[in-house]
Amino acid sequence: MQRYDYDLFVIGGGSGGVRAARLAAKLGKKVAIAEEYRLGGTCVIRGCVPKKLFVYASQFNEHFEDAAGYGWTVGKTQFDWSTLLKNKDAEIDRLEGLYANGLEEAGADIFCGRAVLEDAHTLRLSCQDMVVTADQIVIATGSRPSEHVALPGLELTIDSNDAFHLEELPKSILIYGGGYIAVEFANIFHGLGVETTLLYRGVEILSRFDKDVRRGLHDAMARKGIRIITRDNLRKLDTREDGRIDACLHNADEALPFDQVMMAIGRTPNTKGLGLEAAGVESDQNGAVCVDRLSRTNVENIWALGDVTDRVQLTPVAIHEAMCLIQTLYHDNPTEPDYGCIPTAVFSQPEIGTVGLSEDDACEQYEEIEIYKASFRPMRNTLAQRDERMLIKIVVDGDSRRVLGCHILGPDAGEMAQILGIAVKAGLKKDDFDSTMALHPSASEELVTMYEPTYRIRSGERVTD
Amino acid sequence: MQRYDYDLFVIGGGSGGVRAARLAAKLGKKVAIAEEYRLGGTCVIRGCVPKKLFVYASQFNEHFEDAAGYGWTVGKTQFDWSTLLKNKDAEIDRLEGLYANGLEEAGADIFCGRAVLEDAHTLRLSCQDMVVTADQIVIATGSRPSEHVALPGLELTIDSNDAFHLEELPKSILIYGGGYIAVEFANIFHGLGVETTLLYRGVEILSRFDKDVRRGLHDAMARKGIRIITRDNLRKLDTREDGRIDACLHNADEALPFDQVMMAIGRTPNTKGLGLEAAGVESDQNGAVCVDRLSRTNVENIWALGDVTDRVQLTPVAIHEAMCLIQTLYHDNPTEPDYGCIPTAVFSQPEIGTVGLSEDDACEQYEEIEIYKASFRPMRNTLAQRDERMLIKIVVDGDSRRVLGCHILGPDAGEMAQILGIAVKAGLKKDDFDSTMALHPSASEELVTMYEPTYRIRSGERVTD
Repeated sequence: MQRYDYDLFVIGGGSGGVRAARLAAKLGKKVAIAEEYRLGGTCVIRGCVPKKLFVYASQFNEHFEDAAGYGWTVGKTQFDWSTLLKNKDAEIDRLEGLYANGLEEAGADIFCGRAVLEDAHTLRLSCQDMVVTADQIVIATGSRPSEHVALPGLELTIDSNDAFHLEELPKSILIYGGGYIAVEFANIFHGLGVETTLLYRGVEILSRFDKDVRRGLHDAMARKGIRIITRDNLRKLDTREDGRIDACLHNADEALPFDQVMMAIGRTPNTKGLGLEAAGVESDQNGAVCVDRLSRTNVENIWALGDVTDRVQLTPVAIHEAMCLIQTLYHDNPTEPDYGCIPTAVFSQPEIGTVGLSEDDACEQYEEIEIYKASFRPMRNTLAQRDERMLIKIVVDGDSRRVLGCHILGPDAGEMAQILGIAVKAGLKKDDFDSTMALHPSASEELVTMYEPTYRIRSGERVTD
Repeated sequence: MQRYDYDLFVIGGGSGGVRAARLAAKLGKKVAIAEEYRLGGTCVIRGCVPKKLFVYASQFNEHFEDAAGYGWTVGKTQFDWSTLLKNKDAEIDRLEGLYANGLEEAGADIFCGRAVLEDAHTLRLSCQDMVVTADQIVIATGSRPSEHVALPGLELTIDSNDAFHLEELPKSILIYGGGYIAVEFANIFHGLGVETTLLYRGVEILSRFDKDVRRGLHDAMARKGIRIITRDNLRKLDTREDGRIDACLHNADEALPFDQVMMAIGRTPNTKGLGLEAAGVESDQNGAVCVDRLSRTNVENIWALGDVTDRVQLTPVAIHEAMCLIQTLYHDNPTEPDYGCIPTAVFSQPEIGTVGLSEDDACEQYEEIEIYKASFRPMRNTLAQRDERMLIKIVVDGDSRRVLGCHILGPDAGEMAQILGIAVKAGLKKDDFDSTMALHPSASEELVTMYEPTYRIRSGERVTD
């Protein structure tokens, strides 16, 4: 006789939750998963996937421009936002179906609705008005765009969730934020023909990335025609008589008019109304569920993973945490997620791909640093008469010769960072890079043909020799 | 008093020769280089570089098609061959100038003309009608498209050199060959709107590549509309009354008419009329200069590198051989070129990127092999409604878990192979791949998320379990 309805109940059908549920069900566990919105979570429904589809859409204008230098004459081009939305939605529907199929085939029960904790083993399914019990519970409810609650006029703004469903493409947009979501959407809207302004209160966009990549992207975006305002802040928003929005900045006397204002100031864990208190689960001041290194909350049978824990808010990290958790729970193999050397991309235009330490971070941790840098025009840009350059940068520990970080700004930087991640994670040395034969013509051959450092840094100071 | 006019004389201003001359001159050696055609050699003037520019040009039609699914309407498009040629020529001129500048700045003398060996230390510069002497001589004269001398009607054909300067784009073309040059040009011409047929006497195109990649590319090209005929051969070519060319095949009764026939059956070392006999330098039956592992010919002070030695005919290999030679000659550090794990690309459409052993080669060398394979539609193709799939394949030694080879068919495969080359060359294991965090959404994340082999091979036999 079973004590609980389920061996495992997963709250939240995003990337992490679905992986945990599917793996457990495949092991023969009795598993349920509850999702109140749509299976697939932020990544599939209103994050990584539709975002990248929008990026592709926004790149065609440059393809059309580049064609001329290659001998092509292109007739009048026109963009229809509703076609993009319709096709994007169809693709998202298809992917959502795949997630559902995967769960069903594995034998998991799917509850379309909200699950609220009543105690450490009991959940109320609000929509079905029923209560179920589970031996183990995983909280994987993800995150949502943070709200700038103190901003007068906040109700006039949209966030990234809304951006995927706008009825009309605005003529002009102000995006407030300097993180990767703000930057990616600035490039998307600009590429689709929207007059785009990016406003960020910090000194430079993308604060945690390598400084050369940040500066390089800023310059490239500005040259494309995106207006970037840094070191300033939104004071308030007002509706104008013409229906547009007046944005008042701290450091500007006159208000700037925009059709739309999008907030992109970070993401907040989804823990409101989840019943954490009833179950005795602790969360931090930002609402993130507190977990130990095995993803266990303070309640012995309740675990949490993905964005809701606010460790590293990335899809593959949530999936990795889920796979580790299944090892811990059902394979008698307690496994801590490994957060070292996570390769990441920003799907800006040009794209950023990065893994390992930035120059500044490396300087803080290592006595002697070698920097290898190449800046060049990708071959495709030559005949296209496009003045956009590519940056490839390698950060090396001067003592051990280990490659500490690689930072790329340019076409396919994300794909490159993924594979560089293998080399950097494995602790390969600059000599391993140097002894690799170049592949010509390619952009990445620069990674293996920079034999002499561009400069050296000792104790944080640039060495002039 | 100097015994010779030059410390080093380099015959041939291609990638390998220029690198050798430039490095030696920078060391303070008195260096001369002779080039009878144009500085930059095959790679820059009529190989890698203009080829890749043509590839870019030939991809725009698919961009135009793909745009529709992303919401774009594109007016009438038209391609003008002469614009492409003009812009390509201007870019090649620019690059040639960079090569000349590099040599001049390093202090090398450039002779625009043919240099012919008169003895082991003496060269006649035919155009200037003068004789110079040199202590050390490097033969770096490269290769040219091989001629099918037995083919009746050979004079009606063009080769890859001609393809870069055709006065008009033909309406239809037959390309004879199954190597990378044949395959790349088939895709280029098809992409530019030419009705294209590829004829290869072998069983499958690209004989030395992994079988899945070969088959996958063949299928993709055929689906695009390129006609591929294998296991057949050209019997003869005739001029037709309408000015076109009739191609008679061995296995077909009726001749096939084409506007143009291009031969791409390999490349032959350039050693004719070079004075090898006068200097006593040995060459093999194909005309390749014979060298030892340090690139030295049978004559003590004469060396050879690059295509003319017919070791591995690739630009980066020639450059690598040149750098090794400079170590050997002037740094008291005899250095053998390293031919292990050379990453290569075929700039076909879709592209191939590969490094290390194919499945078949691995089976011959290893007892137990694990194959990891992923086939999927790249995300960009989804909304584009393009039915082209991507293939990613990893060959692993089942005993040591070392990754022996990676084979990719799809967008950016070349860039991926370059970076995978670092990992494979360093002997990394499948576990190093597995412990790398995925980067989402990317194509290359498949490389680090295939946790279970697709199949295993033991003693050359597929294991069914």
